[in-house]
Amino acid sequence: MLKVSAGIDIGGTNTAIGIVSDNAEILAETSFSTSKYDVLDDYVNNVSSTINTLLAGIPNAELRGIGIGAPNGNYYNGTIENAPNLPWKGKVLLADEIKKHFSCPVVITNDAKAATIGEMVYGGAKGMKNFVMITLGTGLGSGIVANGQLVYGADGFAGEYGHSIAVDNGRECGCGRKGCLETYCSATGIRRTVAELLCAYRWPSEMRNIPYEQLTSKDIYDFAKKGDKIALKAFDFTSEILGRKLADLVTILSPEAIFLFGGLAKAQDLIIEPTKKYMEQNLLPIYRNKIKVLPSALIDSNIAVLGAAALVY
Amino acid sequence: MLKVSAGIDIGGTNTAIGIVSDNAEILAETSFSTSKYDVLDDYVNNVSSTINTLLAGIPNAELRGIGIGAPNGNYYNGTIENAPNLPWKGKVLLADEIKKHFSCPVVITNDAKAATIGEMVYGGAKGMKNFVMITLGTGLGSGIVANGQLVYGADGFAGEYGHSIAVDNGRECGCGRKGCLETYCSATGIRRTVAELLCAYRWPSEMRNIPYEQLTSKDIYDFAKKGDKIALKAFDFTSEILGRKLADLVTILSPEAIFLFGGLAKAQDLIIEPTKKYMEQNLLPIYRNKIKVLPSALIDSNIAVLGAAALVY
Repeated sequence: MLKVSAGIDIGGTNTAIGIVSDNAEILAETSFSTSKYDVLDDYVNNVSSTINTLLAGIPNAELRGIGIGAPNGNYYNGTIENAPNLPWKGKVLLADEIKKHFSCPVVITNDAKAATIGEMVYGGAKGMKNFVMITLGTGLGSGIVANGQLVYGADGFAGEYGHSIAVDNGRECGCGRKGCLETYCSATGIRRTVAELLCAYRWPSEMRNIPYEQLTSKDIYDFAKKGDKIALKAFDFTSEILGRKLADLVTILSPEAIFLFGGLAKAQDLIIEPTKKYMEQNLLPIYRNKIKVLPSALIDSNIAVLGAAALVY
Repeated sequence: MLKVSAGIDIGGTNTAIGIVSDNAEILAETSFSTSKYDVLDDYVNNVSSTINTLLAGIPNAELRGIGIGAPNGNYYNGTIENAPNLPWKGKVLLADEIKKHFSCPVVITNDAKAATIGEMVYGGAKGMKNFVMITLGTGLGSGIVANGQLVYGADGFAGEYGHSIAVDNGRECGCGRKGCLETYCSATGIRRTVAELLCAYRWPSEMRNIPYEQLTSKDIYDFAKKGDKIALKAFDFTSEILGRKLADLVTILSPEAIFLFGGLAKAQDLIIEPTKKYMEQNLLPIYRNKIKVLPSALIDSNIAVLGAAALVY
């Protein structure tokens, strides 16, 4: 028999499912629309039949377990809890529902923690016992590994560093508080920064002709690469706040490396390097010139599915 | 044979040494002046002879190991590194030096981590897998337990939360930076706050007649208990900053409890309760009403020696 795991990456738009071998090869994969399934039962039935279809195409496959990465996924409870961008409201007992269809273990965690496990098992953090993963997406997610283990905390909700306070009485956050790190350092945060800079400076910028809602972080990156001063300053400001908050995080965890993951993190010269510079400027002397700031090694592969599958171990 | 450990608590003023049984009983203890021993060899010789003298008084004692808690103690290196208040400068290979006198393991860590282990093994954190210890002394120390293990970080220097930034461009810190948490929340921090409040308000206060250098946190506590408005406000301000920074810490670790330890933490109604209140006001909703803020259960016993001895396990 060929032992395999299923990795499920649940996003607000799509659900990606992959069958993964023990040496991290994705043997089969597919995806379908999450938002089409308002009723949880229908969604679970589709997940189940999708996994079975994928397995049927792999000779002698034996399913070892199913790992799920989902927004607001809780490892201890096997639940998704109050995820704003998913169709099912409140506390969803997803692991239990999927278990009804399979005899193997079903494990769930949030998407940032799944990416962290992916980085540890298959990526740049192989062999590291203490590191931090920062995912820069719509929000800012984080995963912490200490003593070689993912930190879930007492209730499974450790690693919400996107909701640490970066600026006192700063920008309104979706969580109801003000000044959270993710209102500055994320794909939506850098767009807010552009709006602030368009107000503050008289520099010409093509971004003055694009409606706020249509401006993506990829656009801002492209404008920066063309020398747009507002876009360049937006990246610098984002890096400065992130670097300062990473210096704070280091006082707690003293990690070997901090990995940045997600669309924004692809901007090596505009995010990774300046974030490292600002972090160093703010570090307590004992930590200086020790801590790597690296782009995720898995940035272009299907880390979310791999990370979810790795949860099974 | 009766298996015992030696716990050594090295402070700038005194060194306390205790022989501890496996059920956390201090069988013999003594202390001597640290500052008298400018030469490391003399100090190590005295530690060695003190341990042997204590052991000689306990029938059938067999030394299992020696644990040391010291300012800037590094677990990985067995060193004390650049401790400003100890007589030996630079990097001191203390564990190796002491090993020359004994055949058992010798382990070293910093004083806050020793207290954290003491709390976990003998105190209020028994059975907890995720908690944080904050020591409020001359500075602010911290120890982190995640997944049941103390977090040392990549280099042994995790847990320097006293040097996270509480106020941007705030008070000068001994580390050379500005606004570190310990410049606000510590025995010396609350004294600085009193000075600031004596300037800001015209309220009468007996503290106006005491020189800055002579004012202790115990004095401030006593004045607060007598209704001194400056002293009361100093405790409230200290609690507000600490509560806010603990709310930030929670986003990373999601601990079951946060223990406060040290002289200041004895002020239950003036520190513990208001810190909890301000922490709750600043918490991300998912963490609210979950996390205990507790005084150390070992606040009046010899936790430093016990914690150091527990390092041996």
